[in-house]
Amino acid sequence: MYSFKDDYSELGHEKIFNELLKISRTQLNGYGTDDICTQAKELIKKRFDLRNADIHFLCGGTQANLVLINSALASVDAVIAADSGHILGHECGAIEHNGNKILSAVNKDGKILPSDIAAVCNAHTDEHMVRPKLVYISQSTEKGTVYFKQELTDLFNICKKFNCYFFIDGARLGTALASNGMDVKPEDMAKLCDAFYIGGTKNGSPLGEALCIVNENLKKDFRYYLKQHGAMLAKGALIGSCFKTLFENDLYFDLAKCSNTAAQRLAKAFIDKGYTMRSPSPTNQIFPVLSNRKIAELQKYFIFHVWEKVDDDNSVIRLVCSWATNEDEVDKLIALL
Amino acid sequence: MYSFKDDYSELGHEKIFNELLKISRTQLNGYGTDDICTQAKELIKKRFDLRNADIHFLCGGTQANLVLINSALASVDAVIAADSGHILGHECGAIEHNGNKILSAVNKDGKILPSDIAAVCNAHTDEHMVRPKLVYISQSTEKGTVYFKQELTDLFNICKKFNCYFFIDGARLGTALASNGMDVKPEDMAKLCDAFYIGGTKNGSPLGEALCIVNENLKKDFRYYLKQHGAMLAKGALIGSCFKTLFENDLYFDLAKCSNTAAQRLAKAFIDKGYTMRSPSPTNQIFPVLSNRKIAELQKYFIFHVWEKVDDDNSVIRLVCSWATNEDEVDKLIALL
Amino acid sequence: MYSFKDDYSELGHEKIFNELLKISRTQLNGYGTDDICTQAKELIKKRFDLRNADIHFLCGGTQANLVLINSALASVDAVIAADSGHILGHECGAIEHNGNKILSAVNKDGKILPSDIAAVCNAHTDEHMVRPKLVYISQSTEKGTVYFKQELTDLFNICKKFNCYFFIDGARLGTALASNGMDVKPEDMAKLCDAFYIGGTKNGSPLGEALCIVNENLKKDFRYYLKQHGAMLAKGALIGSCFKTLFENDLYFDLAKCSNTAAQRLAKAFIDKGYTMRSPSPTNQIFPVLSNRKIAELQKYFIFHVWEKVDDDNSVIRLVCSWATNEDEVDKLIALL
Amino acid sequence: MYSFKDDYSELGHEKIFNELLKISRTQLNGYGTDDICTQAKELIKKRFDLRNADIHFLCGGTQANLVLINSALASVDAVIAADSGHILGHECGAIEHNGNKILSAVNKDGKILPSDIAAVCNAHTDEHMVRPKLVYISQSTEKGTVYFKQELTDLFNICKKFNCYFFIDGARLGTALASNGMDVKPEDMAKLCDAFYIGGTKNGSPLGEALCIVNENLKKDFRYYLKQHGAMLAKGALIGSCFKTLFENDLYFDLAKCSNTAAQRLAKAFIDKGYTMRSPSPTNQIFPVLSNRKIAELQKYFIFHVWEKVDDDNSVIRLVCSWATNEDEVDKLIALL
Repeated sequence: MYSFKDDYSELGHEKIFNELLKISRTQLNGYGTDDICTQAKELIKKRFDLRNADIHFLCGGTQANLVLINSALASVDAVIAADSGHILGHECGAIEHNGNKILSAVNKDGKILPSDIAAVCNAHTDEHMVRPKLVYISQSTEKGTVYFKQELTDLFNICKKFNCYFFIDGARLGTALASNGMDVKPEDMAKLCDAFYIGGTKNGSPLGEALCIVNENLKKDFRYYLKQHGAMLAKGALIGSCFKTLFENDLYFDLAKCSNTAAQRLAKAFIDKGYTMRSPSPTNQIFPVLSNRKIAELQKYFIFHVWEKVDDDNSVIRLVCSWATNEDEVDKLIALL
Repeated sequence: MYSFKDDYSELGHEKIFNELLKISRTQLNGYGTDDICTQAKELIKKRFDLRNADIHFLCGGTQANLVLINSALASVDAVIAADSGHILGHECGAIEHNGNKILSAVNKDGKILPSDIAAVCNAHTDEHMVRPKLVYISQSTEKGTVYFKQELTDLFNICKKFNCYFFIDGARLGTALASNGMDVKPEDMAKLCDAFYIGGTKNGSPLGEALCIVNENLKKDFRYYLKQHGAMLAKGALIGSCFKTLFENDLYFDLAKCSNTAAQRLAKAFIDKGYTMRSPSPTNQIFPVLSNRKIAELQKYFIFHVWEKVDDDNSVIRLVCSWATNEDEVDKLIALL
Repeated sequence: MYSFKDDYSELGHEKIFNELLKISRTQLNGYGTDDICTQAKELIKKRFDLRNADIHFLCGGTQANLVLINSALASVDAVIAADSGHILGHECGAIEHNGNKILSAVNKDGKILPSDIAAVCNAHTDEHMVRPKLVYISQSTEKGTVYFKQELTDLFNICKKFNCYFFIDGARLGTALASNGMDVKPEDMAKLCDAFYIGGTKNGSPLGEALCIVNENLKKDFRYYLKQHGAMLAKGALIGSCFKTLFENDLYFDLAKCSNTAAQRLAKAFIDKGYTMRSPSPTNQIFPVLSNRKIAELQKYFIFHVWEKVDDDNSVIRLVCSWATNEDEVDKLIALL
Repeated sequence: MYSFKDDYSELGHEKIFNELLKISRTQLNGYGTDDICTQAKELIKKRFDLRNADIHFLCGGTQANLVLINSALASVDAVIAADSGHILGHECGAIEHNGNKILSAVNKDGKILPSDIAAVCNAHTDEHMVRPKLVYISQSTEKGTVYFKQELTDLFNICKKFNCYFFIDGARLGTALASNGMDVKPEDMAKLCDAFYIGGTKNGSPLGEALCIVNENLKKDFRYYLKQHGAMLAKGALIGSCFKTLFENDLYFDLAKCSNTAAQRLAKAFIDKGYTMRSPSPTNQIFPVLSNRKIAELQKYFIFHVWEKVDDDNSVIRLVCSWATNEDEVDKLIALL
């Protein structure tokens, strides 16, 4: 049965594995200090205009979030995040296990507002309470929506006002930046936050996230934290090579566009046929509302998540397309609507 | 310059990447619940006679050690390890960061004895002290030596006597089991410890360790700990496929033999020419004692670690061979002795 | 200026210090293993009908909560608490610092319902999420209200159903049990939860909470956790003696009644004069709604917390009475209404 | 039976309890922000010439060590301590539970040397290893010995060279400063370290240690850490008052002299009768070597620790005197030698 369950069902793009095959017996330095990693970093720095950022390659999103946050915060510091944030409910308490509380604000289509941050910071006033110190958002969000440039600017400004770091989880950064109507360009990222990561796993790489640290305070000693969390691969070139391939000839954004295009074709079909969408997603995750009967019908042919109950008769489903989504299967699903 | 610095300089065996290429667009379940992982586990269970063990694939050795130990111990529990153990000095305090003290005993050629364990346990008697609860050893050890069957049996028995878990770090398990004179067979492992891992990274895989949990107490909820540590790859099949390739046609042990053969050829040459060896290693790491002048000469052609000072004129060096070590380079080094 | 800010402004009852003076030079065993502690525990066991409970004396409430919870939970386990719970917002992230997430439910007058617990447990279903394992409530609550016997019974039953521990923070247990209309008796406590503590600090002792562990699972090794958290006083008899004095001749409940009587006299005066109360508190904390003008007037003579804004013109204040509250000052405040 | 087991068997000096009795019903600010604490701090600042230090009152030594170290170190940082240090073996892994590794050096009569610190720091060179960041010593040491002024100066200088904090555990600071031959004066302390604490529990107070933070880096946010560890007493004035009494009329040093005098009288008797002492202690803990037969004889009348085995026939015992040690019992013990 064909799956629209997520964007990490297919292992990775052929170019990546072909490139790995080529260098399989080359002697390379360990722990990410090799030439392949250096080349990959240069490509990323060029594409994102990241002259002075430090780039580190990590295995996955939960790991990137926990190592960055653990390295940035003291144990009395806290994170602010939307209640739909990945770190809050889907990382098995990784942030708390490492000692930091997450303070949540109710999301609006997956997003938080500057006023949410101000409210949390103003309510935490003395040593009986944790000290908010880092704001976490996902771009694109867990509901498929995106933050536009002015929104990110406003969030970053309020973070600076309250002396908080601003960190962007970019597990799906590719689909956000490649989405229709998006006004944030890759080269804007370094001006809009203190740190962010470029997700590989959910955009065609077998593994890997490229963490970009812009703020000087967060750079120092980061490799110690990588090592301490078991996040420093002996063969760091494995991830370096994946990212080198992804950023040669802009493959990364080509793959992101594939994901978006397939999902938006689905979205248009749902809307054309009168279905409502739970959130205004321009990316590769869409959340149509369907009758439970229709859901059961689709489940005969496709795998996907039933996201949440709307009422006794209707539910929201999540459909996710990837860089490798089969166009024929998209057609088949549309035909069933 | 050719490197004898470590056994993880070459990315991985071609068969592994060719296999990954074949399945690159196949839709697979996430988080290690896919068919490829299942097949890999079956191959390992068969080769190691692990009927009732749980197998989990992790990215690297530090990660495998920290997740297993964190899941096994309460915060008042402690680990016992040789002072040469990898977890003690080369994992940036990962075990302590997660809350557990490591109690060390002086190593004898990289090994600890049952009497060391008894001494530590007998010295920790009340609640002012931590409670020893897990014994950690490396097979082969950080000094290239191996534990023989009776030694493992004795260690396991003393562990049971003191109510400690016995955990074997098998980052280099392949070279231990494939070494000349070794009397432990793969199928013995499950009878000799509570948990162990089969190292992939140092034996031809681009990443990955296969953690085998034998003791029922340690099985429950392990996947929660995997997730909490960011150690559960979304594309778990990546590591699963590496191990599937390694255990088809016994490639894993063929590669280990290659590493051992090359290193032992070097060792024989050193001994034949009158050099002494720091430890009696039958595996892929050897530790000859050389004059500083000879070391400087070799460093013109080869990269390797100067391990420790012997006296003002002599030092121990470490030479490591891998599955991909070039025989011509071995000859070249021997010619320089 | 006289303070109604809290119930820990006065250091402690004279009888306690007189008793300490008597034993000031007696040689006593260290770390809570002395005869005075034993006598105190016997008095508590008798009064609370705690035949098989373990009792430990700790310095304060935050410490009691964190040591009990840290000893009871694995790092992948979580706590469920009302969003008004002390551990959530007023202990500077102590629980998270020790590795556990707190999942919150919206409070109803400071309380949570069995349905809240069921909802949280049912929403946490796999290893991507933490595992709810302990339910925390305060008796009396942070809003002055109390749980009645049937409410506690229902909460304990739902906890058992979902395999959670049920822990009662009794920082103000005295005022709850001594309140008018309360149907829970001291001797019921052990049948209604897995662990609870009897608060000394907020009921006339200079320091100290008596933690009573009923569930066998939570007893083992608790002293290790006490020591590891720096919570085991070398001179444990200090707290033991305080509790011995408190439970000789039922001084503990006499003091609690004093606190309640003073606060309820205030409450009656507010109600008689037409003020509304934010929550139906029968204990020593009351929360009347006042105009900001009236609040400013009272602040000329009294110290108290302005709790929360109601609208632009009105706010909730918190008035707390203690065992040592001066009746004349109560009269004076009433006269100002 | 009379005990020479430790210096915390007697609850506390009468003056302390009399003073507490006097203020038992006075309304005081909570959490150590009251006038009594302020007065106590002023007395300490005057006596120790601590113009710019921050002083915090904590309950006990383990707590003082763990909160200071946890607040000072990042998780990748480590402590250096003598292998006889209290934090290493007698605090149930408190430092490791909070995430930091302790690197130990072999003690010389309880002390470490600047060369030990240099050796540890020089051996920790990259991110595979923890980063030494704080040196911990005890004054007086766990073997009764003391560091003289030049020794402390040298240690502090080497700490600065290696960018480490220098922290002095002063659980028995009183007996060190009051010992015969000591050339460190109370007013020197702030010039010789970054932080130290003045032990109350082992010098006549029922509880309490006064932590003095000299280095600006360590001051910021310390109260957050106090609260997070459950180390901030609601009735902070309890400890404040104890220290106020101890530093009025120099009672603190008078009590320390009592302890030393009694122990040194014992020591002289042992030496006069030909016994050897394990370490050259000028303070209140002495470590004579006795035959096992003589030990058995003394155990009929006195309680004390048998410290360690010397050979089959002889052992070291530890005798500790306190501010309240009975002179007649000292005579009685001497008579038995």
